[in-house]
Amino acid sequence: MFESAELGHTIDRKTYKEIVPALRADLLDAQYDVGQLKAFSVLILINGVEGSGRGETVNELAGWLDPRHVLTYAFGDPSDEEYERPYMWRFWRALPPKGKIGILFHNWNGGPIQARATKQIKLSELNQQVGEINRFEAMLAREGTLILKFWFHLSKDEQAQRFKLLAKDPSTRWRVTKADWENHKRYDKFRDVAEHVLRLTSTAHAPWIVVAGADPCYRTISVGRTVLEALRKRLDIEALGAKQLVSAAAPLPAKSDTVNLINTLKLDQALTKKEFDRQLEKLQGSFAMLTRRPEFRERPMIVVFEGRDAAGKGGTIRRITGALDARQYRVVPIAAPTEEEKAQPYLWRFWRNVPRNGWVTIFDRSWYGRVLVERVEGFCSEADWMRAYAEINDYEDQLVRHGSILVKFWLVISAEEQLRRFKERETTRFKRFKITAEDWRNRERWQDYESAVCDMVDRTSTEIAPWTLVEADNKYYARIKVLRTLRDRLEQAMSS
Amino acid sequence: MFESAELGHTIDRKTYKEIVPALRADLLDAQYDVGQLKAFSVLILINGVEGSGRGETVNELAGWLDPRHVLTYAFGDPSDEEYERPYMWRFWRALPPKGKIGILFHNWNGGPIQARATKQIKLSELNQQVGEINRFEAMLAREGTLILKFWFHLSKDEQAQRFKLLAKDPSTRWRVTKADWENHKRYDKFRDVAEHVLRLTSTAHAPWIVVAGADPCYRTISVGRTVLEALRKRLDIEALGAKQLVSAAAPLPAKSDTVNLINTLKLDQALTKKEFDRQLEKLQGSFAMLTRRPEFRERPMIVVFEGRDAAGKGGTIRRITGALDARQYRVVPIAAPTEEEKAQPYLWRFWRNVPRNGWVTIFDRSWYGRVLVERVEGFCSEADWMRAYAEINDYEDQLVRHGSILVKFWLVISAEEQLRRFKERETTRFKRFKITAEDWRNRERWQDYESAVCDMVDRTSTEIAPWTLVEADNKYYARIKVLRTLRDRLEQAMSS
Repeated sequence: MFESAELGHTIDRKTYKEIVPALRADLLDAQYDVGQLKAFSVLILINGVEGSGRGETVNELAGWLDPRHVLTYAFGDPSDEEYERPYMWRFWRALPPKGKIGILFHNWNGGPIQARATKQIKLSELNQQVGEINRFEAMLAREGTLILKFWFHLSKDEQAQRFKLLAKDPSTRWRVTKADWENHKRYDKFRDVAEHVLRLTSTAHAPWIVVAGADPCYRTISVGRTVLEALRKRLDIEALGAKQLVSAAAPLPAKSDTVNLINTLKLDQALTKKEFDRQLEKLQGSFAMLTRRPEFRERPMIVVFEGRDAAGKGGTIRRITGALDARQYRVVPIAAPTEEEKAQPYLWRFWRNVPRNGWVTIFDRSWYGRVLVERVEGFCSEADWMRAYAEINDYEDQLVRHGSILVKFWLVISAEEQLRRFKERETTRFKRFKITAEDWRNRERWQDYESAVCDMVDRTSTEIAPWTLVEADNKYYARIKVLRTLRDRLEQAMSS
Repeated sequence: MFESAELGHTIDRKTYKEIVPALRADLLDAQYDVGQLKAFSVLILINGVEGSGRGETVNELAGWLDPRHVLTYAFGDPSDEEYERPYMWRFWRALPPKGKIGILFHNWNGGPIQARATKQIKLSELNQQVGEINRFEAMLAREGTLILKFWFHLSKDEQAQRFKLLAKDPSTRWRVTKADWENHKRYDKFRDVAEHVLRLTSTAHAPWIVVAGADPCYRTISVGRTVLEALRKRLDIEALGAKQLVSAAAPLPAKSDTVNLINTLKLDQALTKKEFDRQLEKLQGSFAMLTRRPEFRERPMIVVFEGRDAAGKGGTIRRITGALDARQYRVVPIAAPTEEEKAQPYLWRFWRNVPRNGWVTIFDRSWYGRVLVERVEGFCSEADWMRAYAEINDYEDQLVRHGSILVKFWLVISAEEQLRRFKERETTRFKRFKITAEDWRNRERWQDYESAVCDMVDRTSTEIAPWTLVEADNKYYARIKVLRTLRDRLEQAMSS
């Protein structure tokens, strides 16, 4: 959920100053159009961790906009007026009318997270409140509100650095309270709860947009661009007069630099064949031992492999199955759906392959096709793949709550390495069946796929089912990393 | 929720036999079209109280359809295969493919109700499961499934009669088990939980359809007609090719006789002016006393008046305010929304009028406009008023959880009495402002309004906020019934 926000995104002051004038002018134009059209309201919800620059960013953004049409609210302790009415009353008071922009700090999303992180409510109570939030936001979206939910993120280290920095300067010292340091101690708990709530409240009509909060220039540009793109997208749809499509126009995070989850990886990791052979034997041995333990018979294991063509999924899977009893596993290769599968909801064909306890099912490609190939190739609408993130998270939640050990791998190769492997496949006789015209065609959309992969990891790498990105230009290294991850996850699962 | 189902609907055997041949032929035709089109699947969910004829009805219905394209499943205890997978796996296995009809007994809706009625789970756990059900059904609807959720209802007395009848006949005695009688003892608890779950899971894309289960002929015709109408409606929309509208095509209950909540009331109840004066003084006195008690200062009171033009809302409201301190109440008359209100979600103008503790707010017309005038006059789409039931229930749930005493009245007058009052208004000078051309026009849609009122009561008379229907042809009787209801509700609220 927070993977992309921890990559150390930055924009330097000079670039920032170059970007701002045009961005500001564009935002004012868009705001003017929203105000003239009066067809929808814009609700900007600001949440996140302490010290992540929420206030500064919004101050900056509000300064760029026409203040007559922006309403900003921060909700602290309820007033007596508010206390004597239902909880949501204060938020209803603050809703922006059509044509205006409302910016709400500490809104309905913040309270439940804080309450759970400080153990004031139980998990089932939290989930009940999550249901209420979802119903409320669905209603707002259907009533025409454009909802932008920003989550400002800082890693634990970044938060500590930020607090220390503020405390050092006499002019900002007052901003770091004892309560902030208390909260810092609870950072991990807070993060877990936040991840849980973000997962369950990220819907097709109101998805969360996670902002890296450490760098002031980066976060401001990010938020500004995301708001601008969301306004423009919605204005375009309104211009088409397509009422039905409106709720499908989800705001998506704008790209404000070129740093992403994939291109920050060092894909060609060193590992010799000799070292590979030595480690492989050892890891396969421990993996085999673990899957033969009696506790393993009480849980199923599900392993997902995704990656570009020729990323090495097949070879890696063979190294896993090599350690397993053939009566115990099944490899499910996922290609285009059959007629029978097409006649069912898209998750149906994965549900039918859910393993029993004690079984291992390895998916060679998976339910993530919907947010990868189907998204990029336009096989489904934006509304369909946007809602798929939440549906997939729900599916995996059910698997994990049942006790499944779920491990997901994305094998990452570079464009150059893929090309090398394609050519090798064309010339090596027994590999020729593995390369088709479609593989070459897919290469042309390299960047689109990369964006889709980053979104996928950000939206579906959750506290219950994290993604493991595997640097796979060196196939030896990739296979060892996968096997080691599996062994660790198994050990961890069986000791808990 | 179950009001309409307790009116003693019946269809005699002879009429039944006249209806069936054509209905059956129409159903077969519709089923054939669904099968040929293969654009959507049909999911019929069967739930309800024991002894309400669920099995018999479905057997009958299945007999009318082409059995090659109907899949019926009943879910008892999970098999070992099912037990070793996530809870929902068994239901995924049973989903019908596009072009087919699936009938599912004891599905995902039944388990949570049973578990809560027998106190195996907490309320917050129940609500958490409700959220999961809603997400699952929303996904199915968006994937193209037509969902028909039937709830078979019997009153407590009807259930006892049914069990006794079965127990008397040696050939059916085996069908009433000890467990059934145990469940009968828990009837009230079960009904409360069912009402709660039905309220929270009745959505625009999958609303509950409550079926009166006591009369075999009536319930079979009802279900058959509802299925037929839902299939035809969806087929029509598919024929238009309007993909976006599909999820808006909610199945609605078919009318199978002329008995409804309104026309079974005796509208002209006797009460003399003299008796009225005597009782009014007494009731106003107790009401005034109750609202001056210190406990009252800790809760708000919200009174809703709905009813046709000239039903006597104004006069009744004056009799209430006559007993209140002017500093303590506010009457909010609801007409067409202002510009400011139109720029907000439709519930906004009611949220802004939520009273503080110790205050009484009386709404002369209310948020129910959406499912009455807006529905009947076509001011909003079917999808909009269908989702409004759930949104209104959510709103009232928040009011009541805050501690509000919420009382809702529908004043019922006959068409003849309305006509008499209209004419009186035209001739009485000080009443002439009260009658407009629109009032006369509304009379033309008398039946449409009556249907809308019955649906409104069925879908929004809940365990937390029941409707009181007031027979209002005699205005004295109506005013006394309203005041007595208010006094009773206040007394009850303050003693709890």
